[in-house]
Amino acid sequence: GIMAIAGPADAAEQVRIGLFALQHRGEESAGIAAGNDTTLHEHRGMGLVGEALPDHALEPMRSLPLAIGHVRYSTTGASTITNAQPLPFNLAGGRIAIAHNGNITNAVALRQRLEADGAIFQTESDTEVIAHLMARLSGPLERRLRGAVRALEGGFALAVLTPGAIHVVRDRHGLRPLVLGRVGGHWCAASESCAISMLGGSVERDAGPGELLTLTPGGMQPRSRIARPRPARCSFEHIYFARPDSVIDGVSVHLARKRMGARLWAEHPADVDVVIGVPDSSLVAAHGYAAAGGVPWDTGLVKSHYIGRTFIQPSAAQRQRGVELKLAPLAAVIDGRRVALVDDSLVRGTTARRIVAQLREAGATEVHLRIASPPVTSSCHYGIATSRRSELIAADLDVPEICEHVGADSLGFLSEAALLAALEPDVPARHGPGSDPGPGSDPDTGREDGDASSGWCNACFTGRYPTPIAEPAERREQGAPA
Amino acid sequence: GIMAIAGPADAAEQVRIGLFALQHRGEESAGIAAGNDTTLHEHRGMGLVGEALPDHALEPMRSLPLAIGHVRYSTTGASTITNAQPLPFNLAGGRIAIAHNGNITNAVALRQRLEADGAIFQTESDTEVIAHLMARLSGPLERRLRGAVRALEGGFALAVLTPGAIHVVRDRHGLRPLVLGRVGGHWCAASESCAISMLGGSVERDAGPGELLTLTPGGMQPRSRIARPRPARCSFEHIYFARPDSVIDGVSVHLARKRMGARLWAEHPADVDVVIGVPDSSLVAAHGYAAAGGVPWDTGLVKSHYIGRTFIQPSAAQRQRGVELKLAPLAAVIDGRRVALVDDSLVRGTTARRIVAQLREAGATEVHLRIASPPVTSSCHYGIATSRRSELIAADLDVPEICEHVGADSLGFLSEAALLAALEPDVPARHGPGSDPGPGSDPDTGREDGDASSGWCNACFTGRYPTPIAEPAERREQGAPA
Amino acid sequence: GIMAIAGPADAAEQVRIGLFALQHRGEESAGIAAGNDTTLHEHRGMGLVGEALPDHALEPMRSLPLAIGHVRYSTTGASTITNAQPLPFNLAGGRIAIAHNGNITNAVALRQRLEADGAIFQTESDTEVIAHLMARLSGPLERRLRGAVRALEGGFALAVLTPGAIHVVRDRHGLRPLVLGRVGGHWCAASESCAISMLGGSVERDAGPGELLTLTPGGMQPRSRIARPRPARCSFEHIYFARPDSVIDGVSVHLARKRMGARLWAEHPADVDVVIGVPDSSLVAAHGYAAAGGVPWDTGLVKSHYIGRTFIQPSAAQRQRGVELKLAPLAAVIDGRRVALVDDSLVRGTTARRIVAQLREAGATEVHLRIASPPVTSSCHYGIATSRRSELIAADLDVPEICEHVGADSLGFLSEAALLAALEPDVPARHGPGSDPGPGSDPDTGREDGDASSGWCNACFTGRYPTPIAEPAERREQGAPA
Amino acid sequence: GIMAIAGPADAAEQVRIGLFALQHRGEESAGIAAGNDTTLHEHRGMGLVGEALPDHALEPMRSLPLAIGHVRYSTTGASTITNAQPLPFNLAGGRIAIAHNGNITNAVALRQRLEADGAIFQTESDTEVIAHLMARLSGPLERRLRGAVRALEGGFALAVLTPGAIHVVRDRHGLRPLVLGRVGGHWCAASESCAISMLGGSVERDAGPGELLTLTPGGMQPRSRIARPRPARCSFEHIYFARPDSVIDGVSVHLARKRMGARLWAEHPADVDVVIGVPDSSLVAAHGYAAAGGVPWDTGLVKSHYIGRTFIQPSAAQRQRGVELKLAPLAAVIDGRRVALVDDSLVRGTTARRIVAQLREAGATEVHLRIASPPVTSSCHYGIATSRRSELIAADLDVPEICEHVGADSLGFLSEAALLAALEPDVPARHGPGSDPGPGSDPDTGREDGDASSGWCNACFTGRYPTPIAEPAERREQGAPA
Repeated sequence: GIMAIAGPADAAEQVRIGLFALQHRGEESAGIAAGNDTTLHEHRGMGLVGEALPDHALEPMRSLPLAIGHVRYSTTGASTITNAQPLPFNLAGGRIAIAHNGNITNAVALRQRLEADGAIFQTESDTEVIAHLMARLSGPLERRLRGAVRALEGGFALAVLTPGAIHVVRDRHGLRPLVLGRVGGHWCAASESCAISMLGGSVERDAGPGELLTLTPGGMQPRSRIARPRPARCSFEHIYFARPDSVIDGVSVHLARKRMGARLWAEHPADVDVVIGVPDSSLVAAHGYAAAGGVPWDTGLVKSHYIGRTFIQPSAAQRQRGVELKLAPLAAVIDGRRVALVDDSLVRGTTARRIVAQLREAGATEVHLRIASPPVTSSCHYGIATSRRSELIAADLDVPEICEHVGADSLGFLSEAALLAALEPDVPARHGPGSDPGPGSDPDTGREDGDASSGWCNACFTGRYPTPIAEPAERREQGAPA
Repeated sequence: GIMAIAGPADAAEQVRIGLFALQHRGEESAGIAAGNDTTLHEHRGMGLVGEALPDHALEPMRSLPLAIGHVRYSTTGASTITNAQPLPFNLAGGRIAIAHNGNITNAVALRQRLEADGAIFQTESDTEVIAHLMARLSGPLERRLRGAVRALEGGFALAVLTPGAIHVVRDRHGLRPLVLGRVGGHWCAASESCAISMLGGSVERDAGPGELLTLTPGGMQPRSRIARPRPARCSFEHIYFARPDSVIDGVSVHLARKRMGARLWAEHPADVDVVIGVPDSSLVAAHGYAAAGGVPWDTGLVKSHYIGRTFIQPSAAQRQRGVELKLAPLAAVIDGRRVALVDDSLVRGTTARRIVAQLREAGATEVHLRIASPPVTSSCHYGIATSRRSELIAADLDVPEICEHVGADSLGFLSEAALLAALEPDVPARHGPGSDPGPGSDPDTGREDGDASSGWCNACFTGRYPTPIAEPAERREQGAPA
Repeated sequence: GIMAIAGPADAAEQVRIGLFALQHRGEESAGIAAGNDTTLHEHRGMGLVGEALPDHALEPMRSLPLAIGHVRYSTTGASTITNAQPLPFNLAGGRIAIAHNGNITNAVALRQRLEADGAIFQTESDTEVIAHLMARLSGPLERRLRGAVRALEGGFALAVLTPGAIHVVRDRHGLRPLVLGRVGGHWCAASESCAISMLGGSVERDAGPGELLTLTPGGMQPRSRIARPRPARCSFEHIYFARPDSVIDGVSVHLARKRMGARLWAEHPADVDVVIGVPDSSLVAAHGYAAAGGVPWDTGLVKSHYIGRTFIQPSAAQRQRGVELKLAPLAAVIDGRRVALVDDSLVRGTTARRIVAQLREAGATEVHLRIASPPVTSSCHYGIATSRRSELIAADLDVPEICEHVGADSLGFLSEAALLAALEPDVPARHGPGSDPGPGSDPDTGREDGDASSGWCNACFTGRYPTPIAEPAERREQGAPA
Repeated sequence: GIMAIAGPADAAEQVRIGLFALQHRGEESAGIAAGNDTTLHEHRGMGLVGEALPDHALEPMRSLPLAIGHVRYSTTGASTITNAQPLPFNLAGGRIAIAHNGNITNAVALRQRLEADGAIFQTESDTEVIAHLMARLSGPLERRLRGAVRALEGGFALAVLTPGAIHVVRDRHGLRPLVLGRVGGHWCAASESCAISMLGGSVERDAGPGELLTLTPGGMQPRSRIARPRPARCSFEHIYFARPDSVIDGVSVHLARKRMGARLWAEHPADVDVVIGVPDSSLVAAHGYAAAGGVPWDTGLVKSHYIGRTFIQPSAAQRQRGVELKLAPLAAVIDGRRVALVDDSLVRGTTARRIVAQLREAGATEVHLRIASPPVTSSCHYGIATSRRSELIAADLDVPEICEHVGADSLGFLSEAALLAALEPDVPARHGPGSDPGPGSDPDTGREDGDASSGWCNACFTGRYPTPIAEPAERREQGAPA
């Protein structure tokens, strides 16, 4: 997740607050770079925002009016401080820093070309490719950024801090979210609107697909299009990834989840005594499901929020005895009841299988599993760390087979059509004048951008990717960091 | 919170898992002591269980069959490793370790008497008083423990590891919970049943008020009464403190909370569009309230679970702008609606006031505050860190004044009678044969144990304490640790 | 080593400087306690003074005029922070702190008696025995200290911080050194005079055997004798342990070592081309030896001063190849020469053996080993961590056998008589008027204090101990800390 | 300092031992890179070798036969882990690592040229310039290294780890030392011979000026000349920097220092009672001085070896009182005597001034200062961190003025001619057949290489530098790291 703000005296401090709101988008590392016309300071650390960015780290950034920040959720590259962002670079035209959310699908090819041409790479990060592309171009930094971004394919949102300005870019498909706002009169940008809200700011609009915007203490420069838009927004942001209080491209994440639950009942009702959800992300879908069916909703699983990086693992012997630290069934709700269990998605099936068994052990007489999205059959190449295809249960098994595998009495998935219906905007999307051609309106739409006709990327459910995919996602994740 | 198990080869490891389930009872420090007939090892650390008790700390405890553990939630004594528990002591009769949950109300007087008699205290902890009382008695350790406990007043659950055995004790009022179970054939004891369930064990019964039990690898010794029972169980465990999947003295915490919500509607209904709860502890009461009234329930506040000891504080300037990191209102649910906000209790009123303001800012047209317990008017002397009396909003203001202070459109509290009704047992309490005289049956019941006639301690709501209170809670918390 | 000062506003800071000068007396842990009439703060840490006592640790001690400090060189008790000193204790009469250098030979017996009487011990340290003895006496703290010290046997120097005063005590034999001085008008005490000199102070006199003195901001109270003096000062302080710039009981450590070297030549000359010493402690003795014989002295071994607690160990394979990190022979000096190698003492013989082999490998044609003290045949019970008797090479082998074992061409030890002659005072010892009866003058001198007739303890060379020895030193060092 | 070895199974471990011997050449950070034909692992850390390179850091390097190491003594670049070496780089032809001792005098110019050409620099280190030069060349890595080194000016010794081989290079002047040896049949290279000796290896010969050698497990490839030699070896290595047991270019450091002392007596005798040296580096020169004059030599100053990075600083008040932690005068030697104080060099004069005052305070009746090298009048540009010219006392003052400034009774410096005489080889230098043209034999010798006619660089004494100096040393050290 990324965050940027231009103007306030405590820019770095505000970015840190924003990153705190975006913490769910990356718990591995966090960093901030802050600057003005002549100076650039940066700090990166491993762990959560509170650990990675202690107060003293922000001391040297005091009174610098431009700041960008990043929380990292590694999809490629090892989990080391070297790969934490924003990454700083000394270019001939000045010192810059780049924060990048998403995945560049042609990064390996670009990197090989640059290395053959004498470039020395320091990290495993896609981000460094952008800097090297910029270093080899001439002219003002903004023009060099524009040239570099044109060479990129994939799904990404970028924030680039240069002397005196911050540039933010969203990929031409709008695969990764990027929203613009104002806090105390200063322009800011963030991966999700919840970051702007937490700062007490107002959300102005989403960045359009393929749009580059420049934020300075003086204001925001008019939009500039890097590439022709081919909208294919990521539905998984709404299904699972984003925070419920965010609104992305006009769609409230919370309300969309509730609608997914309601439509799931319409497609797959269940004759049960109680509906429960898997905490925390599926509670809303479960509530929508129960409300649509007029069935009681209740808390059926207690989640421990203490589980984190200092996680204690039950020993092998304890696992055999069924020690499960994260989720505990609430026997008083489950015992002797027919239960509908709602989860937001089904990826590998291991969690669902374990929970079904827990519920039966707690006394459930029947367990009906309902999934508020279609079966995941393909890997994501755009920065959502779903699993490799070989691990996706729905890549090999059909619905009855999955049902048997997880041990449920019945199983139902939301259809793609119902998913798209649930994703209808709650408010009109605001991408700036004429920025968004809307679904299906792009004359360039061709073979490769599959789902783009809907305006959404559902590739993980359909296998139809909006960009060329030269290198399999599996290969990249296996790449051993040196 | 305390945890103990006698018998398994991995006793320390099982205690650690149990402590993990009890983490909500103390996040400040954690420790484990393990032993057999001749050896005793202990480790204590600051922070959560996962940090305080890393794998390597348990290495020397491998194959020791007796283990007790503790998570600390400081009520008296400074937050330092010195005060972490279990505390080990070298007595003439052998090395022991003591874990203690609760508060000993005559600890200061006992300590002064012991110091005058030549005892040297190393910690601020009440626990050390018990060891010094034991050191001055003669005979077998169990008899000395019995003698020491008889001198104590207050609310407590103890686990004492001695060579070859673990002794657990519950105070004569049953103020602090203590439950017995079996895991893989081995007897265990814990502050809450969720710890036994997480280990895959079976909950056998609650320890009775004033009961001392001895656990060894060979089994559990028959009960022995330390003092005549005067039941006065803490209702605040069910209202707020305990985990929802625990069952304490036969009452399911989750179901009791739901009943509190339902009875709250009966006493204080509200003409609203949506009912929301303060996450996480009040969601169930809110749901019970909404269900009883037939009003829609929804998620109205998003809680960040990343906030912990590495908390980042918004700066003064940001607080003025309303930066609130912990709870974010969900505008899509709140905006334009009349809202009933349900909280489990009202202590200082500061949180409620802030949330009411947040909801209004997010567009709520009306905010009706409902509290699923009576007003807190008195300090707790038995280990629940409610505030000093001077900070309790209901100690000085009546309901209309509180309503005005927090800025709500209306305010309703659950009555004490309704609270007691909600606390009716879900299953018959099992305290062993003849252990529990039941409410009102104690012939000793006199002036000082006030609420004891109900079998519950509601002193924080009524000011009627079940034990003599010589020293004000305020004084003790102000006591500067040396 | 211990250090104390009474009066200056920066007492703790001055003690830290003093401890720095005493660092060679203990590298394991360091601590400071500071106070005034009502307050006592203390801080202890593992490692060297600079690590264990960082600036921030001394912050709360600012402006407290009384301070005592300690550097620990463990002889009994495990190497943990629990055993670091000064140890603080809450007695009925006030909070005190005790710093203790040396060894109490009847500590185990005293401890057993106290435990049987209800005392609870927290540490393995002898020091805690003193506190418990004090806790069981009544009256003012100074009188209780006096009573406690009378029960102690062994060699020790104590500093005890009480409300408003510091008391320092030296054992009745003067086994451990203790010197008094003045810094900027304020009285101080230290294990060695180098600490007082480093503070720019003046050395006033040594504490007499069995003397207790009280330092306050107002001055030093007249001497008070705890026990009848039986002087038996430790010669090993001058041979090896003390810093060369210290003067102990009137004897310059540096000059004594030089005289030991000169007398060693008189007793055991050598026909060699060059004399070298083992750095750093034996360089002076080697120089004295060479000067007395008119033979060239040179640097023959280069010592790495980087070796410390972060020591890297050569692997087994490397040790076989002769990798030796600490001492490197200087081939340009050694090659083709007949070498006399002077060491201050010979304990286990392993170092000497290794160095002799190194010298031969570097080209020495002959190696004549000369030891500037008698053979060590017995363990020390008074705080010098020489080895157990079973490890002492001279306990089993005679001089020709040792010579063969270490591989030298010849071997000579300084005689006890020559050692005593080298220890003649350089300046008249000042112990206060009438405080020191001088060698042999004590009418109480009896069987048990062996060497006391010389005024020196040479027990490690002679086996004649100045105190009863109930428990073998071996047993105590083997005692596993709980 | 650098260290390299090719062949043994525990190459990294051996390099660590070697670095330990070179610790005096850099205490700021340490690192090791190890590899074979296909793999390269590296680890760098702050602090001494024992801290920076713990055992676990070398685990992944086990069984890799090629290893290079580095200890850093910063002359340019900030003291951060980023600047620690060896620095790893991913070049198109493979992954390499570079360790570099010394200073590249045209690094800033080279860097600016490379940045303008699109290179992105990550560190402040000169070393990165070499990698970027290599990245822009084509062909095998060794040829690219050769091309890169040809562009460098200054004094340096390099070790470059490439797939399957280690290349070591010494600058054309031989300004920085580099010696070759064999350990257990495997070739190694090190900044000083003491590293090879500590490994139990044999020193084979010095690398010649301008020589590049390739070490592989199969042996050492015949020499190849990068540039025409212009010998100008650094005399300061022998005067102060190198370890006494090293032999550099055939000159024993220890014996050279002794000869400097002897010649100093010949030029500047003194009528004194005792000669003392400043420990540790000047003790030998002092001994040579005393021996030449037949005057007693003694230890006059006790140095604390505990002073390091955890240094405690006396407070301002204490400094006024004369608290001096590092060096303590030995009053028993000084008091009432006329003293000659010998130091190896005089740079800023502050230490000498303080010591003279300390000696007088300790009772010296006269203090005659003797310096075993000429006055330092110019900054070093080749990696010895002498001070900026503005801080050099001899840059502004003549000998009588300096004498008055430091408060000595007389002052004498060794002449340049005597210094050169003391640097005569002890053994014939071995640089391989025909490698070393010897002093004055280079037909290229021109204006710029000043002292090169002697074969030694005495630029810090004479201001005659052997290379062009475009940028003042002052400027570079002031350069604020970004």
